[in-house]
Amino acid sequence: MNRYSLNQATTKYWSLEDVVAASAKADLSWIGLWREPVQEYGVERSTKLVTDAGLRVSSLCRSGFFTSTDAAERQAKIEDNRRAIDEAAALGTDVLILVSGGLPSGSRDLDGARAMVRDGIAELAPYAQEAGVRLAIEPLHPMFCSDRCVVSSLGGALDLAEQFPVEQVGVVVDAYHLWWDADVYRQIERAGARICSYQVSDWVVPLPADTLLGRGMMGDGSIELRRLREACDAAGYDGPVEVEIFNQDLWNAPGQEVFDLALARYGEHVA
Amino acid sequence: MNRYSLNQATTKYWSLEDVVAASAKADLSWIGLWREPVQEYGVERSTKLVTDAGLRVSSLCRSGFFTSTDAAERQAKIEDNRRAIDEAAALGTDVLILVSGGLPSGSRDLDGARAMVRDGIAELAPYAQEAGVRLAIEPLHPMFCSDRCVVSSLGGALDLAEQFPVEQVGVVVDAYHLWWDADVYRQIERAGARICSYQVSDWVVPLPADTLLGRGMMGDGSIELRRLREACDAAGYDGPVEVEIFNQDLWNAPGQEVFDLALARYGEHVA
Repeated sequence: MNRYSLNQATTKYWSLEDVVAASAKADLSWIGLWREPVQEYGVERSTKLVTDAGLRVSSLCRSGFFTSTDAAERQAKIEDNRRAIDEAAALGTDVLILVSGGLPSGSRDLDGARAMVRDGIAELAPYAQEAGVRLAIEPLHPMFCSDRCVVSSLGGALDLAEQFPVEQVGVVVDAYHLWWDADVYRQIERAGARICSYQVSDWVVPLPADTLLGRGMMGDGSIELRRLREACDAAGYDGPVEVEIFNQDLWNAPGQEVFDLALARYGEHVA
Repeated sequence: MNRYSLNQATTKYWSLEDVVAASAKADLSWIGLWREPVQEYGVERSTKLVTDAGLRVSSLCRSGFFTSTDAAERQAKIEDNRRAIDEAAALGTDVLILVSGGLPSGSRDLDGARAMVRDGIAELAPYAQEAGVRLAIEPLHPMFCSDRCVVSSLGGALDLAEQFPVEQVGVVVDAYHLWWDADVYRQIERAGARICSYQVSDWVVPLPADTLLGRGMMGDGSIELRRLREACDAAGYDGPVEVEIFNQDLWNAPGQEVFDLALARYGEHVA
């Protein structure tokens, strides 16, 4: 259980204090945080809360969203990404999760959008390294390609990441987004030291109306979560394993119930 | 326009006679057919209807669905696939579209499911060749991996197809399913003479509750349809281009209106 990390988005309606307290009480070592609730609570205050509870921050979600045909908007995003790097550094995590952004409005230029992602990362990478933070490119499921993330496979994420030094830019292996890929085990091996984070939830169908909230509890779906974890381990990853589930039914359930269930399911299906 | 083929599923509520008549009236050379309406009308009668109208069948959709943990069920599927091959041959098309099937109920064994697909194809391929029909493996979008098709990328389809002679087993390039893939142009080049069909529709969000019906009219979405068509051409494909759109709003619209719109949009965005 020393690698287990609950990403706070899993118990979305819990306050930061609640999820930190529950994690500490369960003797966990890690917690995954989101920028918005951290900003709301205050970055310095959040850092103290987490540190005093004996926890470390496994990753900060999330920044990125580099794709826009408007140069000023792109620049504003770069500035926001710099703030995210500062926040990650303050929280003591070396992993800042980047979601690339989708196609710019009205555009079909997928190569162009991916080039914007590369350019954005190029501008941020040295700054991140100075702050002791790695930019972790997260490929999202291809169903999010047009409107959220033009990086849709681990191979595509590595094509980007490998243009930068390994200590500056890595990748996230999120089982939900990648499990279907016939090439995923080869790409995990290729990723090696680029792996910044392994995240778990489960693939369940039918998808809800809001496809962003389709993730299921580990064990409820189709993903070989343990096999993927073992593949990351074999590639050299020995960091935290984050449970990150966006699911309205779980959000509506009592936080402690979801917390306990996630921990139990992790033991059964991932550890 | 000599490569244009309307797949009859696009005007689902039109009778076979209606869609054949409209295609002939528009001076088209091709039409794409589905097994169920063809069986309903009668295979021999359908063949005569299409031939008398001066049309050729670009492909027959669809067969496959090889994945089951029950051996008797798998065998029944093989028998049904043999009938589909016979139907394709009778209709005079050399392209039978195969959708693999998803994970067997309750299973997470993706490799095992893909092995079932390979085994099913191995059993059918010689029979198909004798009938003058190529088995065309269609990779579906990864969002259908668990419940409909464990072959989720062109690379994955080719990994399967290349285990068989090129005259027995090919692949379908359906833009809707593959457009997001950073590797798709390389895989189209790899596919070469394996390409049996290029199919078009468009990617639009949000997805509807029934994700199977999410396809949009060409030009309404995010896909570089012409670029993908040109890539198929460059790989040596010079066969029909099929318009295949499952969309409740289009199904509810008057058939001739949809027919005319699809033809116009094909000219603007694909040809």
